[in-house]
Amino acid sequence: MRWGDMDAYQHVNNVAYLGYLEEARIDLLFRLGAERGLAALRDGLVVARHEIDYLAPLVWHPRGIDVEVWVEKVGGSSFTVGYRVHDDGRTYARARSTLVSYDLAADRQRRLTADERAFFTSFTLDA
Amino acid sequence: MRWGDMDAYQHVNNVAYLGYLEEARIDLLFRLGAERGLAALRDGLVVARHEIDYLAPLVWHPRGIDVEVWVEKVGGSSFTVGYRVHDDGRTYARARSTLVSYDLAADRQRRLTADERAFFTSFTLDA
Amino acid sequence: MRWGDMDAYQHVNNVAYLGYLEEARIDLLFRLGAERGLAALRDGLVVARHEIDYLAPLVWHPRGIDVEVWVEKVGGSSFTVGYRVHDDGRTYARARSTLVSYDLAADRQRRLTADERAFFTSFTLDA
Amino acid sequence: MRWGDMDAYQHVNNVAYLGYLEEARIDLLFRLGAERGLAALRDGLVVARHEIDYLAPLVWHPRGIDVEVWVEKVGGSSFTVGYRVHDDGRTYARARSTLVSYDLAADRQRRLTADERAFFTSFTLDA
Repeated sequence: MRWGDMDAYQHVNNVAYLGYLEEARIDLLFRLGAERGLAALRDGLVVARHEIDYLAPLVWHPRGIDVEVWVEKVGGSSFTVGYRVHDDGRTYARARSTLVSYDLAADRQRRLTADERAFFTSFTLDA
Repeated sequence: MRWGDMDAYQHVNNVAYLGYLEEARIDLLFRLGAERGLAALRDGLVVARHEIDYLAPLVWHPRGIDVEVWVEKVGGSSFTVGYRVHDDGRTYARARSTLVSYDLAADRQRRLTADERAFFTSFTLDA
Repeated sequence: MRWGDMDAYQHVNNVAYLGYLEEARIDLLFRLGAERGLAALRDGLVVARHEIDYLAPLVWHPRGIDVEVWVEKVGGSSFTVGYRVHDDGRTYARARSTLVSYDLAADRQRRLTADERAFFTSFTLDA
Repeated sequence: MRWGDMDAYQHVNNVAYLGYLEEARIDLLFRLGAERGLAALRDGLVVARHEIDYLAPLVWHPRGIDVEVWVEKVGGSSFTVGYRVHDDGRTYARARSTLVSYDLAADRQRRLTADERAFFTSFTLDA
């Protein structure tokens, strides 16, 4: 959280939450993905959809908040990520994003590789 | 659009779209609402949910983009807003937000007044 | 201005002003520069320094604000831009940026061309 | 740093740095100030001026960056903060902000208290 994420209502603005989801997702996809040699995730993922439910107002505090992130579903060329924004046992938001793997050079969707599917599947809740 | 809304992929970042929706919504609710004497809309509306589908990549350009906004459904203490982010005939995103009217002093949901319901209903597509 | 530019003090956050300066600067450099055939300005300008004095608190309103922008000084490979953020006769901030022209391929500063110097000089106050 | 702080040049946008300065300043003034019982700092400080020199391009990476912050000068109703944005021995920016203590109720500057002056002086480099 940044102090400036709060708006004139003195709560974290609803737009800022999507930045928190992005950080959590990027940590999963870019950092962990890179450690497993899945570099294509860094340059070929497009956000196709977000859904977010705001459950409680969030006030900035210096301890920060946590974003839990997991994979909900893995398809042929897309997958769905789930999130919970929380702090000390309180949940502020739940969200879900659909990401599509993309071949930027060819400018079209591409199928996930077997390694990518195994990587994503390892982050599903029943994994 | 702001030039800085583009990210390292050289497209407008998915987070920035929610700022565009906010501007369109605020114009409807705060400015038009204030003109009709519905001042409570300014201080007592909470975003409960967003859904957004990204349909095409958007590159900053000086002409800007348009956001069409309308009311989809009016309930007892909440309503749903629809949006289309577009430009010269191309649609970049479609979205939907659920807003809840809130009594900030009492810290709980409140019912929409008849005037508020009439105001929102006048922005439904079949109005 | 965007409504979300306001922070918990219910004024436009100091960080957001730099976004306003960027929009004004980009309009000058990218849009007008492109009209004069100075495409290199779009891809080879680096911000080296900002100075900004905040003169009055700014509250979001639907009419928006204006940013006056001019060129203060043109050097061999850099130039200085001045700004005034204002609205209805009130000045909210004054600022100045130093921009350096850069050869991205060679990764070093480059001298401004004669056409670029003439373009910038035409935006000085005594031009 | 947030990944989305990068712009279409694939470097952290110049505007985003001011958010980093804000986080570092707030940690000093709000968190440490509150620990010393100086609660007025939280609600009565206004940014009067920023100066920032950008020294090297910054690319997002998951390790993050550090912002060193100290007090440069303490005046009657204002003080100056210095910053260095750095990472692994490389300096990306140096900056300085002037902050003014403000009596929001009376809507005018107020003098710093002796305790506030002592607190700020303890963060000067020669303290």
